[in-house]
Amino acid sequence: MSAFLLTADIVVPMTPGREILTDAGVAIEGDTIVAVGPTAELVARHPGAARRHLPHHVLMPGLVNAHHHSGLLRGTAEHLPVWEWLRLHIDPMHRVLQPEDAEAAAWLCYAEGLLSGTTTVVDMWRYMDGAARAADALGNRLVTVNYVGEHPDYDYFDTLDDNERILRDWSGHDRVMPWVGLEHPFYADEAGQRRAIAMAQRYDTGLYTHCSESELDVQIFAERTGARPMIALDRLGFFDTPRTMIAHAVWLDADEIDLMSRRGVSVSHNPVSNMKLASGFAPVAELLAAGVAVGLGTDGEKENNNLDMFEEMKVASLMGKLRSMDAAAMDSWQVLEMATTGGARAIRQEHRLGSLETGKQADVVAVRTDTPRMTPLIPSGAYANIHHNLVHAVRGGDVDLTMVAGHIVVDGGELRSADMDGIIAAARARVPELFARRSAYLDSIEEPTGLFGSPGTGSSR
Amino acid sequence: MSAFLLTADIVVPMTPGREILTDAGVAIEGDTIVAVGPTAELVARHPGAARRHLPHHVLMPGLVNAHHHSGLLRGTAEHLPVWEWLRLHIDPMHRVLQPEDAEAAAWLCYAEGLLSGTTTVVDMWRYMDGAARAADALGNRLVTVNYVGEHPDYDYFDTLDDNERILRDWSGHDRVMPWVGLEHPFYADEAGQRRAIAMAQRYDTGLYTHCSESELDVQIFAERTGARPMIALDRLGFFDTPRTMIAHAVWLDADEIDLMSRRGVSVSHNPVSNMKLASGFAPVAELLAAGVAVGLGTDGEKENNNLDMFEEMKVASLMGKLRSMDAAAMDSWQVLEMATTGGARAIRQEHRLGSLETGKQADVVAVRTDTPRMTPLIPSGAYANIHHNLVHAVRGGDVDLTMVAGHIVVDGGELRSADMDGIIAAARARVPELFARRSAYLDSIEEPTGLFGSPGTGSSR
Repeated sequence: MSAFLLTADIVVPMTPGREILTDAGVAIEGDTIVAVGPTAELVARHPGAARRHLPHHVLMPGLVNAHHHSGLLRGTAEHLPVWEWLRLHIDPMHRVLQPEDAEAAAWLCYAEGLLSGTTTVVDMWRYMDGAARAADALGNRLVTVNYVGEHPDYDYFDTLDDNERILRDWSGHDRVMPWVGLEHPFYADEAGQRRAIAMAQRYDTGLYTHCSESELDVQIFAERTGARPMIALDRLGFFDTPRTMIAHAVWLDADEIDLMSRRGVSVSHNPVSNMKLASGFAPVAELLAAGVAVGLGTDGEKENNNLDMFEEMKVASLMGKLRSMDAAAMDSWQVLEMATTGGARAIRQEHRLGSLETGKQADVVAVRTDTPRMTPLIPSGAYANIHHNLVHAVRGGDVDLTMVAGHIVVDGGELRSADMDGIIAAARARVPELFARRSAYLDSIEEPTGLFGSPGTGSSR
Repeated sequence: MSAFLLTADIVVPMTPGREILTDAGVAIEGDTIVAVGPTAELVARHPGAARRHLPHHVLMPGLVNAHHHSGLLRGTAEHLPVWEWLRLHIDPMHRVLQPEDAEAAAWLCYAEGLLSGTTTVVDMWRYMDGAARAADALGNRLVTVNYVGEHPDYDYFDTLDDNERILRDWSGHDRVMPWVGLEHPFYADEAGQRRAIAMAQRYDTGLYTHCSESELDVQIFAERTGARPMIALDRLGFFDTPRTMIAHAVWLDADEIDLMSRRGVSVSHNPVSNMKLASGFAPVAELLAAGVAVGLGTDGEKENNNLDMFEEMKVASLMGKLRSMDAAAMDSWQVLEMATTGGARAIRQEHRLGSLETGKQADVVAVRTDTPRMTPLIPSGAYANIHHNLVHAVRGGDVDLTMVAGHIVVDGGELRSADMDGIIAAARARVPELFARRSAYLDSIEEPTGLFGSPGTGSSR
């Protein structure tokens, strides 16, 4: 197979040594990186190879969005405490969501992600056949996480049967990676919890759930189990899977962090969502220090309300500094690593994704440098600023090219794998009826139930 | 004079009633808005007027960036506590900064602002003739605030003589508004403080300074004056000007907020900077409740590190919610108002700027709505989301058109009033020598002095 060379002024490969290369690129065969290095060397080693040179660009690995919900509620469910927000807006939406709504949302959100440099997205969403079809067509990688409620109170979510069918039908796909999902550990009864754990074991895949997002989780676990959430989950067998991943993990104590490290539990840190829903400061520095695999996630269109991983990196940096009242905390490399290699580790894909290294998948993003945001541009020396600019200055709109598995799916800042206007129109077309069905449902009941069946309060999920 | 009509699908005029208009626009004569309303009415009242219709756009007033420093240090002065950062990077830069550096930085930063919807910028910077020339040519509005040090320890900043010359030379310009600046109240001796206050009075203009950014300010004021900073400034006469404006104002108590309200002191809130430099949470809700005019500012290229007021709005919302642990705090309208009408009030321009209303200046921004970030798009009813989308989803790169004083200076997302590539190249060309001069200065001394002459510590400025 002949190689294809993608070269640029600067490459930030996200290798352990945190190198920044100049006049460099990647050589790609099929879906795989076969070399990373100086352009002159690549050209010499691959004479006659097709080459795409991007002057005024930085190449970096595609970003891993470690927590995401597709959706159509952007900007329509605002200014409410998290449990009221779930009770009045989100759970009623789930009761009336149709497969066509879910698929339209997936197309929209994955396209938004690709345009801003996200090549892999972990999506907890509904009716995941449509999501998998969207990823298949658009070209992104997708960890499917069914939004499962396996409990009489939550019988309007996906079921473990739905989840198992996705595991059977999509496990062979090269870019779609089905996991087992639970909306929250308590959205399943005990039998459901045991079955979810057993499914992750049987299919050798991950188990993904929200937990410890708001402080209320700590109280509810104490009432139900007499233990802190992570301790309780371990006792329930949740950590006996090939990989259990917790979205949010804001309210943790030191014993829980130690346990998560020992049991290989991974985390998605979602700083914008944690601020917007007033969930609090996650102990990210402590998790990283303990060796926990921490990815970075945008959360959904209604918790953020965009899906720009560059913005998420900046807010992760800002939130880390504010939390510790230390401008040196949460440095730019740590943040970049969470968005790339950390996310890849968190989803057990560190052997294939997260960095530009020989043998890994060719998931590459090119960021423009001919902008005020990248001025000045100093790749090396005491004042090297490329990594700082990527975190604090660049925005997703500066992404010019996105490649996944060797395929260019965004070029010139435009989606090439599908018609963006058509995707937006299709999403917008679903909204009036979705909202009308939800209104009809809300009109038909006395009062929406709260979380865990309580009247008007509940946990973060 | 014949009118020009600028119309779009949606207009968010930022009027006190917080209306959202559909199929509407503004009629403009020269630099002035002569009508705002439904397109059909505007067309009927101005038959034969030239019309530019922008389908798939929201029109809103140009944004006011209430705190900004132009600069060339983006991403090169990171991960340091604020006083070490000033001592090692920023103050040594000021010692070697040349007028040509300062002017190149102003061109770069004002262009970045225009491209992301900022039509008015309050710039505390050096050698302000160059800054005024840049604004004159680029087309933005500029409040010039000289970075003055009128003290033997700070003789490498601009002087009050420099500032007074700017007041004389530029006061007649229709878009350049010279103010009096002091880097910090204690960057002037007592005579300098008195002269700065007198200058603001004599020229009927504002006095602008940094204060109470970090907690250290409270300590230093206590040591030097025996009072909290705002109380001390009032006693020193700082509030006897036509308008005194404080950048940051993070560390305030209730008495200070009450005093600021009674004395008409205005504030720039700079949330990204306050997080990045670990300064803390400003009491924005209390300031707004007390009726203080609060604008929103990005701070400089080295404190943020971009100049995107849309991002600043989002972080203002997020920080307000996290501070109070209340998802309903700092709502989208409050944030939009800080970035528009609040900023205009803060700089005494509420009669001319900040909203799309008859008689005000034609400073208009058009934001694209044909994007995932604006999907869905619901202008009215219980789920209206335009205002939420503008704060939480849109980024500066979604700005398609920027008009200042009736002139279109950004169109199709491109700068039209000057050559962006040339501006970037000119800025980059100044950087190597600026950094070399700073290195030579640092090599020539034993140890950089700290703030207020102390060895290695000091206030936030």
